[in-house]
Amino acid sequence: MIRSVFYVSDGTGITAETLGHTLLTQFEQVAFQQMSLPFINSEEKVDWAVQRINRAAEAEGARPLVFSTLIDAHLRARLGECQGAVFDFFDTFTGAMEQELGVHAQRVAGRSHGMGNVRTYSERIDALHYAIQNDDGATVRDYPMADVVVMGVSRAGKTPTCMYLALTYGIRAANYPLADDDFEKATLPAALEPYRHKLFGLTVDPERLHQIRNERRPGSRYASMEQCLYELQGAERLFKREGIPCLNITQRSVEEISAQLMQQAGLKRRI
Amino acid sequence: MIRSVFYVSDGTGITAETLGHTLLTQFEQVAFQQMSLPFINSEEKVDWAVQRINRAAEAEGARPLVFSTLIDAHLRARLGECQGAVFDFFDTFTGAMEQELGVHAQRVAGRSHGMGNVRTYSERIDALHYAIQNDDGATVRDYPMADVVVMGVSRAGKTPTCMYLALTYGIRAANYPLADDDFEKATLPAALEPYRHKLFGLTVDPERLHQIRNERRPGSRYASMEQCLYELQGAERLFKREGIPCLNITQRSVEEISAQLMQQAGLKRRI
Repeated sequence: MIRSVFYVSDGTGITAETLGHTLLTQFEQVAFQQMSLPFINSEEKVDWAVQRINRAAEAEGARPLVFSTLIDAHLRARLGECQGAVFDFFDTFTGAMEQELGVHAQRVAGRSHGMGNVRTYSERIDALHYAIQNDDGATVRDYPMADVVVMGVSRAGKTPTCMYLALTYGIRAANYPLADDDFEKATLPAALEPYRHKLFGLTVDPERLHQIRNERRPGSRYASMEQCLYELQGAERLFKREGIPCLNITQRSVEEISAQLMQQAGLKRRI
Repeated sequence: MIRSVFYVSDGTGITAETLGHTLLTQFEQVAFQQMSLPFINSEEKVDWAVQRINRAAEAEGARPLVFSTLIDAHLRARLGECQGAVFDFFDTFTGAMEQELGVHAQRVAGRSHGMGNVRTYSERIDALHYAIQNDDGATVRDYPMADVVVMGVSRAGKTPTCMYLALTYGIRAANYPLADDDFEKATLPAALEPYRHKLFGLTVDPERLHQIRNERRPGSRYASMEQCLYELQGAERLFKREGIPCLNITQRSVEEISAQLMQQAGLKRRI
């Protein structure tokens, strides 16, 4: 049986989805049908949300789970009348926080994933443009501004990691792809020498790399197990010889790689 | 007075941070000092976290706020002995969810931002590579695979939006920059005609665009108010004439732009 889940928010829905997803991961024995209802910021929209929830309740003969981050008390009360089991996020924590902090919550909607401070927001967007402009190792001209230079062979997760670091933490991450001629020398590529302290290596199991590359260019030399092994051994030898901290990404998501890299490299979020 | 806030997690810390950040936005009258403690997955690490929390409590003479998403009961109990006010996410919701669903929570750590299903994960990474390869409008070769083609003038938020759509929703978004010669014709650029139903426009207030471009290339023609006005008027005329849905990004974060675009374009997340 499938159980409907609704994420109801007056903003983007990101908080409601994050909380709900996290809780649902603990109930993998149940099949969920998830639906996000963002920007629910008026009576009409709440009533529309309630109708959708009620229709699901009737169709399934069970109460849908409703994760709500609505702030407005009137809208929350209205949502509370639906035929779902409502998990009201602010209701749950705000009282205890008010007591702890000795002040009243401000109850302003849409703040958590809005623009916030314009300067901080610009830093994040600039970091993303930085990552894109420094995604291929073509030039090290902008490396003096880098917070970290992520190295690794092709398809070892460098690009997603750099983009994620920028969007989430405002970190300026350059991407330096390692290629055949980097493995043949006994030294660090000369262009990287001044940035030695910013280097971070990513690596991956050869079987996984072979699989990823084969999906992209089936049967190519690039995707062959032999080539994957050659490059990975070269990269790992380089990381070890030069004392570059590194991380194996095989079992890790981009979120996990990024959080781990921040910790290992001792980086602080800029936003 | 500054109040310390700790995010304690056995995984990336993303859920704990999202939960806490969202709640803190309702208490902007208080100054918070935030610290993330991810990958707390052993007794030693919990004890280290407790020490850090206790040191902050003593230094500040007030209980730090502690947002925890630890799953393991033993580690949670140990953290509960710290001198902070602990907001325990699973403790708060799991009981009610178990009752509602009629099953026990599985209590497995690190699931919520792990890799999950490898196929789903690959789709997300492929979507990101797609967005990067289609970031400059140089070719429409891959547009048949696009879920959406985001149009707009330079620095109207296309690139961050496309990257965010890929990483968060697994959506394949191409970026088509509008340039002078697109405004001079009375038709859609011919190359875009077959993808008309996938087009989505971004626009921005001229003052804001002028400011953003001026930070990038101060005093240039590109950044001049005259040029910004010319391009934005041309873009908006094109969106209107061709019936392309569009969104003004001036007051919106990349999260808000993306959630709104998903809704207006009727896109469904792929992951």
